[in-house]
Amino acid sequence: MELEVYLKERRELVEAALEARLPSVDERPQTLHRAMRHSIFAGGKRLRPILCLAAAEACGAQPEAALDLGVALECLHTYTLIHDDLPCMDDDDFRRGHPTCHKVFGDGIAVLAGDALQALAFEICGEQNGGGVYAKELAVTSGSRHLVGGQVLDLEGESKRLTLEELRFVHLSKTAALLTTSVRFGGMAAGASEVQLEALTKFGQAAGLAFQVIDDILDVTQTSEKLGKSAGKDVDSEKSTYPALLGLDASRQEAHRLTQEALAALEIFGASGAALRALGNYLLERDY
Amino acid sequence: MELEVYLKERRELVEAALEARLPSVDERPQTLHRAMRHSIFAGGKRLRPILCLAAAEACGAQPEAALDLGVALECLHTYTLIHDDLPCMDDDDFRRGHPTCHKVFGDGIAVLAGDALQALAFEICGEQNGGGVYAKELAVTSGSRHLVGGQVLDLEGESKRLTLEELRFVHLSKTAALLTTSVRFGGMAAGASEVQLEALTKFGQAAGLAFQVIDDILDVTQTSEKLGKSAGKDVDSEKSTYPALLGLDASRQEAHRLTQEALAALEIFGASGAALRALGNYLLERDY
Repeated sequence: MELEVYLKERRELVEAALEARLPSVDERPQTLHRAMRHSIFAGGKRLRPILCLAAAEACGAQPEAALDLGVALECLHTYTLIHDDLPCMDDDDFRRGHPTCHKVFGDGIAVLAGDALQALAFEICGEQNGGGVYAKELAVTSGSRHLVGGQVLDLEGESKRLTLEELRFVHLSKTAALLTTSVRFGGMAAGASEVQLEALTKFGQAAGLAFQVIDDILDVTQTSEKLGKSAGKDVDSEKSTYPALLGLDASRQEAHRLTQEALAALEIFGASGAALRALGNYLLERDY
Repeated sequence: MELEVYLKERRELVEAALEARLPSVDERPQTLHRAMRHSIFAGGKRLRPILCLAAAEACGAQPEAALDLGVALECLHTYTLIHDDLPCMDDDDFRRGHPTCHKVFGDGIAVLAGDALQALAFEICGEQNGGGVYAKELAVTSGSRHLVGGQVLDLEGESKRLTLEELRFVHLSKTAALLTTSVRFGGMAAGASEVQLEALTKFGQAAGLAFQVIDDILDVTQTSEKLGKSAGKDVDSEKSTYPALLGLDASRQEAHRLTQEALAALEIFGASGAALRALGNYLLERDY
């Protein structure tokens, strides 16, 4: 499989669907719609939608069956980035080399652009067949017990050392929860069996955790240029990370173990799971 | 009808349902759950849930049929208050005599408490029978084209004069949209007919607009003590209001006209609409 070509094609599919779904900048209030589009079209990799489409394929459906849900996932993810970047949160001026939403539009509009993207994610969920199930799952994933809860502990971790168990909760909540929902949504749109949904859930959890551990490792070992954001920031601020708590070697072992667990979960999908397996490899077999 | 008794009973029903539904402060992350509860239990009148229950009754159901949806509406409403009060938005330190969420917990936690309450609103919508329909309607109502959009124009109105048409959009978006959804949700939970839903929609729109015009009038004519917030603030900051654009007399006439329109829409409900009509009177026949 030519993964680069696959990723490019999928990204274009997702970009076109986002373009069609986001309110036009000509529509009132223009500032808000510009702010929403600024962050949605700021060079994201579209990882969550692409995983969603690949999971639908793994379960025997056409990727288009899960495209709307992919758009919902990207809206939800982007809202969390906008709010996380605010001065009262992580205070980041740049993301993927672009100025963050509040730097361009001000803090108030950035809060509201995030709020509106969250609403749009649920609007799309609600429109699907059996939309209540999607709305419920996305809400639980993004609510106080997962995504938002993880961000709170992450904020608290800036001023006090988290335990390994707390850090694991942060990573599960902030990254693994939405990755898991991404592949589950693809499976659900494809009418997956319980066994298939369980396998996707296992993959999402392990891959999400692995991804975050690897991010922590790369943050310590790489330079600003390569990452496009301020590297070493987490270490400078004595923020709790896997390397800080476990050491670099043990963190690498943990990342490796989780990666194997994630990829093993996909074995049941056979040939139709090829793209999803390739994505798993692409995500996790980074140079750490 | 003893409206005071009715309101007290309904409020207690709603409070108990909110108490049962909001995550416990013992659950991690405790700070976040404390912040969510701080704002949810800060003395709100529970107007939207009570309207929702009364609309369900008007359409022949028991109020309990719409109680979960009432909780969802209050979560959604409370999230918008938390975000509107932030320093980067309206910058309010007090609401209903209580310190606002960000004053107690800091701006970051306040943003996240609002985000989590929005998610909880959609979680509850998703759980209902035919939950996708509720999620979709609440998302449209609260999204960039209505609630959040209205707040953006409201923010912009602080620095430039809005036209009457723009101000009407702000009021329709910020207040009337969610009031309309509140009564519609009650009707939908009760299995209302199309005609009944149309009447509830008309009532919500007219009552919401009337309520906002009256608020603008009272802001000009009343004192701080009576309102429990800084009166005259809107005039001081040359913010666009109905009295500022239309004059006080014409604003009063407009409020009266809208009130009559709202109450007329409820005539079709006969005896079962008594509570909803009484609520309409209570809301709109204030001393302005």
